[in-house]
Amino acid sequence: MSPHDVWTRLVAVREQAPLIHNITNFVVMNNTANALLAVGASPAMIHATDEVEDFVTVSQALVVNIGTLYSEQVAACKLAAARAKTVGVPWVLDPVGVGATPYRRAVAASLLRLGPNVIRGNGSEILTLAPHAPSGAGRGVDSLDASDAALTAAQWLASESHTIVAITGAVDYVTDGARVAEIHNGHPLMARVTGLGCSATAVIGAFLAVDPEAFAATVAALAVFGVAGEVAAGWAAGPGSLQVALLDALYTLDEATLQAKLRVTVR
Amino acid sequence: MSPHDVWTRLVAVREQAPLIHNITNFVVMNNTANALLAVGASPAMIHATDEVEDFVTVSQALVVNIGTLYSEQVAACKLAAARAKTVGVPWVLDPVGVGATPYRRAVAASLLRLGPNVIRGNGSEILTLAPHAPSGAGRGVDSLDASDAALTAAQWLASESHTIVAITGAVDYVTDGARVAEIHNGHPLMARVTGLGCSATAVIGAFLAVDPEAFAATVAALAVFGVAGEVAAGWAAGPGSLQVALLDALYTLDEATLQAKLRVTVR
Amino acid sequence: MSPHDVWTRLVAVREQAPLIHNITNFVVMNNTANALLAVGASPAMIHATDEVEDFVTVSQALVVNIGTLYSEQVAACKLAAARAKTVGVPWVLDPVGVGATPYRRAVAASLLRLGPNVIRGNGSEILTLAPHAPSGAGRGVDSLDASDAALTAAQWLASESHTIVAITGAVDYVTDGARVAEIHNGHPLMARVTGLGCSATAVIGAFLAVDPEAFAATVAALAVFGVAGEVAAGWAAGPGSLQVALLDALYTLDEATLQAKLRVTVR
Repeated sequence: MSPHDVWTRLVAVREQAPLIHNITNFVVMNNTANALLAVGASPAMIHATDEVEDFVTVSQALVVNIGTLYSEQVAACKLAAARAKTVGVPWVLDPVGVGATPYRRAVAASLLRLGPNVIRGNGSEILTLAPHAPSGAGRGVDSLDASDAALTAAQWLASESHTIVAITGAVDYVTDGARVAEIHNGHPLMARVTGLGCSATAVIGAFLAVDPEAFAATVAALAVFGVAGEVAAGWAAGPGSLQVALLDALYTLDEATLQAKLRVTVR
Repeated sequence: MSPHDVWTRLVAVREQAPLIHNITNFVVMNNTANALLAVGASPAMIHATDEVEDFVTVSQALVVNIGTLYSEQVAACKLAAARAKTVGVPWVLDPVGVGATPYRRAVAASLLRLGPNVIRGNGSEILTLAPHAPSGAGRGVDSLDASDAALTAAQWLASESHTIVAITGAVDYVTDGARVAEIHNGHPLMARVTGLGCSATAVIGAFLAVDPEAFAATVAALAVFGVAGEVAAGWAAGPGSLQVALLDALYTLDEATLQAKLRVTVR
Repeated sequence: MSPHDVWTRLVAVREQAPLIHNITNFVVMNNTANALLAVGASPAMIHATDEVEDFVTVSQALVVNIGTLYSEQVAACKLAAARAKTVGVPWVLDPVGVGATPYRRAVAASLLRLGPNVIRGNGSEILTLAPHAPSGAGRGVDSLDASDAALTAAQWLASESHTIVAITGAVDYVTDGARVAEIHNGHPLMARVTGLGCSATAVIGAFLAVDPEAFAATVAALAVFGVAGEVAAGWAAGPGSLQVALLDALYTLDEATLQAKLRVTVR
């Protein structure tokens, strides 16, 4: 995927301003909404069981994130994902901290059965979703497994579930089971800001809304996010200013910067 | 309304530090609290049905925002608004994304019957609250209708509901049904930061707490918010830094800046 | 406590990256998670009753904050605190706005009976938790009582409840009932940013996770937070940029800065 291929997809998001329905965690709601606005999409955070089915029907993509579950929200996630599938709205699953508790594993498993178009997690999370995941207890939302170690699990999961799986970390991987894209962008300081993975997932939703080819959409979204993160890290004095700068970088990203910085390979 | 009229109200907020009870959405809780602190008020975010009636009684104003509803919160909004009315605490309604779902319309309608002193929304939201609103589905929390197109609906709604209605957008309008104030401040980049409308609503609550004349209080609040937004946009490199700078600008706003930048007319 | 004593504890947090389980309020979830990441800890915000007992068992400390209660969350706080006690995970209570409503007082009282290792509040909150607290209604989450006025109440509460009590304000106090530490760091502008007290409580949790001596851990945590706040205030143009700069300052804090700025006395 060339810088121009990424750029045309970013332009499509900016021009179409797709409405993205998010059922996401409370830690990142503000930042996720701002990341979607910065990239040109139109975010809505709506999680009441009384309205999620209506709302997902008028949205261009759905993002489901299990970071801070509670009973009504779990029900809302299932209702929205099922309806998304019925009406043909693409949806993305972010299985935050899925290995941390049996409850979380059960919720993620039930969501997985509802057929997400894309799954984005760190290495630990993807390993947990695949049957060869280590049986040891997870460790919150941080990744214990380098993203490359989880690649085999991701390919298995993608084939088995007919979905796209993205693993983010020092290197990001995207696979449909056969193809594997590697994105060597981003910056280590990004791991010191909470919920940037969640924002990346939401941005995948925005790209999926304007591009039916989910593999390419996912690669382009993570490429944009990674390059913006690199630009922002150059402006930042620490994780606080990085969080702010990332939104500025997403908003101001241009094709020349993509040309200069993008490091994506597909095999 | 002169810059000095706006300034004296801002000084009153800073001196009295009114306690503002917010039942608001999860996306903007942090930013709304910080906007209230920056303007000199004392925010509290309290939404348990077991305590909202007690708390609103000791507050100087209530702000109700329907952005991210769930069942217990809807009940809390109704309890708090009803008690506010009984004890004479002024309250402001922010009907976020009211046109998006039937559920949201129903909740907003029931809150409207509880007599908000001020309603603040974008053009689409105000049109939805008025009976001449277009029947088409809303589109999340973004405004589809320029704020001036909704002015007729706002005047009707203000007269019908004996309230003040504010429409924010490229131009902000405030009306009591007869009078109309126009505020030509603010900056287009503000639309790229989530929840600035929600913060504006909260700031209206702060001004309402120190000024029983709701029309003037609303105009002054939006004037302060708009001028601070302009100042902040001059400091910002994008939407991330704008969100930060806005809080700094609200906190440091002085009378000379109001004199130089305020563009308010009342007819 | 010397700057070196504080520094070695900060280094331990950075090296061990303890997993901190937070059941906290919605206003500060993002900032609290980011403060923990900035100081070197690994935060998780998990509040479902179906999983808090499992999760606290694999955590190194628990932080319970009652800022924005709702029914399921209150149940989660009790389950998690009780399990923490059973399995020997230290836990910290932040009784946000405890004097504001009878409901809040009742919840805090029931949590107090579950034996927190540390309690951190402002002067008003600590006075409310102690039987000699004034009977007048509280005032949201702001402190009406200077922290020194609440010191006697704190010493009583620490002795009675066999816990460490920290009062934060212009001067921070930490007591185990007998010893009293005073921390003369921080900056007045910190009071204009929402939830910095909540972040301080979370940072106490991180230090408690790496140091079984709760008095020293609490003093070191508040010392780090206060010095970082001073550094950040030197970089900030207002409360918005202070919030951002504080995270940068926590992340970049070095021993030389502690040596230059720390003002702690223990008697």
